Amino acid sequence: MRTILNIFTLTVTLFSGVLQGLPHTYFKSFPQSGKHGASEPQFTEKYFSQAVDHFNFNNMGNGTFRQRYLITDKYWKKGHGPIFFYTGNEGNIWEFALNSGFILELAAQQQALVIFGEHRYYGQSLPFGNHSFNIPEVSLLTVEQALADYAVMISELKQQLAATDCPVIVFGGSYGGMLSVYMRLRYPNIVAGALAASAPVLSTAGLGDSRQFFQDVTADFENIAPECRDAVRGAFSRLKELADLKDYSRIQSEFGLCKPPSADQDIHQLNGLLRNAFTLMAMLDYPYSTHFMGNMPANPVKVACETMMKGPDLLANLRDTAGIVYNSTGVLTCFDLYKLYVECADPTGCGLGFDSQAWDYQACTEIEMCYESNNVTDMFPPMPFTNKDREIYCFKRWAVLPRPGWLKIQFWGDALSTASNIIFSNGDLDPWANGGVRKSLSSSLIALNISGGAHHLDLRGSNEADPESVISARMKEAEIIAQWVKMERHRLQKTL
Amino acid sequence: MRTILNIFTLTVTLFSGVLQGLPHTYFKSFPQSGKHGASEPQFTEKYFSQAVDHFNFNNMGNGTFRQRYLITDKYWKKGHGPIFFYTGNEGNIWEFALNSGFILELAAQQQALVIFGEHRYYGQSLPFGNHSFNIPEVSLLTVEQALADYAVMISELKQQLAATDCPVIVFGGSYGGMLSVYMRLRYPNIVAGALAASAPVLSTAGLGDSRQFFQDVTADFENIAPECRDAVRGAFSRLKELADLKDYSRIQSEFGLCKPPSADQDIHQLNGLLRNAFTLMAMLDYPYSTHFMGNMPANPVKVACETMMKGPDLLANLRDTAGIVYNSTGVLTCFDLYKLYVECADPTGCGLGFDSQAWDYQACTEIEMCYESNNVTDMFPPMPFTNKDREIYCFKRWAVLPRPGWLKIQFWGDALSTASNIIFSNGDLDPWANGGVRKSLSSSLIALNISGGAHHLDLRGSNEADPESVISARMKEAEIIAQWVKMERHRLQKTL
Repeated sequence: MRTILNIFTLTVTLFSGVLQGLPHTYFKSFPQSGKHGASEPQFTEKYFSQAVDHFNFNNMGNGTFRQRYLITDKYWKKGHGPIFFYTGNEGNIWEFALNSGFILELAAQQQALVIFGEHRYYGQSLPFGNHSFNIPEVSLLTVEQALADYAVMISELKQQLAATDCPVIVFGGSYGGMLSVYMRLRYPNIVAGALAASAPVLSTAGLGDSRQFFQDVTADFENIAPECRDAVRGAFSRLKELADLKDYSRIQSEFGLCKPPSADQDIHQLNGLLRNAFTLMAMLDYPYSTHFMGNMPANPVKVACETMMKGPDLLANLRDTAGIVYNSTGVLTCFDLYKLYVECADPTGCGLGFDSQAWDYQACTEIEMCYESNNVTDMFPPMPFTNKDREIYCFKRWAVLPRPGWLKIQFWGDALSTASNIIFSNGDLDPWANGGVRKSLSSSLIALNISGGAHHLDLRGSNEADPESVISARMKEAEIIAQWVKMERHRLQKTL
Repeated sequence: MRTILNIFTLTVTLFSGVLQGLPHTYFKSFPQSGKHGASEPQFTEKYFSQAVDHFNFNNMGNGTFRQRYLITDKYWKKGHGPIFFYTGNEGNIWEFALNSGFILELAAQQQALVIFGEHRYYGQSLPFGNHSFNIPEVSLLTVEQALADYAVMISELKQQLAATDCPVIVFGGSYGGMLSVYMRLRYPNIVAGALAASAPVLSTAGLGDSRQFFQDVTADFENIAPECRDAVRGAFSRLKELADLKDYSRIQSEFGLCKPPSADQDIHQLNGLLRNAFTLMAMLDYPYSTHFMGNMPANPVKVACETMMKGPDLLANLRDTAGIVYNSTGVLTCFDLYKLYVECADPTGCGLGFDSQAWDYQACTEIEMCYESNNVTDMFPPMPFTNKDREIYCFKRWAVLPRPGWLKIQFWGDALSTASNIIFSNGDLDPWANGGVRKSLSSSLIALNISGGAHHLDLRGSNEADPESVISARMKEAEIIAQWVKMERHRLQKTL
């Protein structure tokens, strides 16, 4: 049991740290540093001496920390080709680098230098090392600091690499996509355009409907079959009956829990864990199996629905469906409620382990994630998460009060029309999609819909099972980016 | 003597606090608070509860301070007319409100609400009261915090005043003009356009020639007569001869100093004080006398040249020319070198008193003001002020190191072409003009030149002595602003 739990913990930590929460980028197993083999892109891992606090000259003085970045000039036409810069989001930067194959394919076509910048407070880029998540050390984890990091890093690396007249395009998925949008808004002097894949810039700024997220998760299952949705709803309803009866030993045996639940809080936790499995399958609903982390099958939503509808025992079906996510390798002999899932300020999950603390802090400060399930517009148990709930949690956990409306003021909310050169791509299977920009706002603020696409599928490398929609989206993206590069080259040459 | 010195100190404190340094806005004597008489615009003084630290959620928690603003709805078509918001710069906000008559004239034409926001750390808007200039309390004085203040203030006041679909135009002169530009760059979601009068956005971002400023001061005097420039140069040269001979008592008597100089440092100080008089007259070179503060005559540069050339005793001429600025009322019986002028991180002067500390801190952090005189490209003694000099001074004074290049990264430097709806107005008499944008960058990034205009003359109220150039510039500004308001109204109505 000890060995099994160790493997399990490792798996879940890696899995949840990356896949849960807004960041959700998926990756193969890979070495944590150094150069990779021939089959992997030849990224070199480097560190940049970055200002700890861009917005206060006294606080840290001009103190610096080591910010990690990955770089490959394998495809670059030196001093001339564009720079493709990935604005790292909430996780180890290798994860994003190794799961954004499209950027490398595009670099090969367009002779680009590729850089992946790691977001401060994630991966190895910890301004205060092991103390980074203490209070007040954590307080320099803000969107503004992260953007300033990238702006300074790009500016200085361009100098170092004799690339001052190379146009820069930023890329990002999910929160990374939001950062790409913000880079173009804030630093158009540095960044010529942004490909923002699955970036929920609206919902995270408090715009939209708090019910949208879990409603759209539900829709994915409903679209396989209304009976699938009904089976999920029925299973949660059955669980509620048992919980109301306080039949905790039955719940333990039905779900294979390591310990019986002993209070409402445990049931709440179980509901959260189960809901999270559906969230992940909806986001991860790729047309091919992803063998990294948990061996997610191809089309997991379809597989989940088959599991949910395989027999009359809805609780057993629900347990097995959760197993697709939490126990795909079959090594777990039981589910530990509090190790598999941790509640935080992001109801879609912050994951577990190291990086999840950082994301929790961001969800407690600038990023607004008050998404609820209610069992009316979605198939899940009612689990409200109001501004007040968020306030109480965040003050207790981090000694901060969120500032609703701040992100909308800072990053323009839905008043994006004066911006330019941004692609907002979204897949219609992705529950994050409707939190983003779905309609083009101008000839250079382009919304691309990827029919049958899950969370930032377009950023992933080409795959035989790719639907036509993503192939054509990537072609369109390549074309638009080439155009931006051309325009920016012209601008830079005029300036020089 | 005691009485005289007191009057003198008061005068110079007010005078220098406002007129020296980048801010340089000029004003009549006025009550410090409350409503003004019938002859004055009916501003009401109010306070806004503002976040102390926008960029760190732990540092001050959600603590607030009282930020002052002035407001008048005298001309406003309630809920419909535009909002004209002055982005206050480095001084008491009343000074700007009472010396920007054009904004009120325009408000009367366009039925606008007028608000003047006071910049944090100036006037009454002190986040930490009397401790605001301690270290580290001073560290929340940054351009970014000031912009966020205005963004939050505008957003909330629009709600409070039921003005959510009223377009907002920002106005500012000098550093206030820089802030107006930055507001449009950073917050086009909030601000539809900016009139930036005499805003040296380029030179303060380290772009351009460090010799430009004093060269252009010199040019103003040279344009009256090359002999005027030669007389100034000759007088400084004569002073240097005496200083080299260490003939300090002669220097004292020639310049009417309260104490004889006793070291090179005192001579350096005297040179700085004298140079500063020419700087002020060049900036203040209005075609009518300004009776506030020191009774500056009409066309002070011309008056200075007449004084410089009135007889063969160049030192006496130089003393009397300095007297136009420092002793216009004739009450001073002697010049106190260290009370009339204080050296700081801005070689064009930080002024004296309260607000000058704040400006010194800004010049030590984000605003780059390494302007030099060299006696070759200008008529002044060589007074270098290098990045290294700045670094040493700023570390000693404020325990900070400047970050050259930061302002250029943050606020786009000369890569402004993706912005829109900004008027850059400059007068060709103004030594700040060539540190700003002199040529239109696009159809909505419009440079206006005001021939014969000094520092943000266009923001001042109409005057019979106004040259045609400023009358026509103001008409053009009114027309462009009306157009922006119309476009923004359209956008807001589409969004609502």
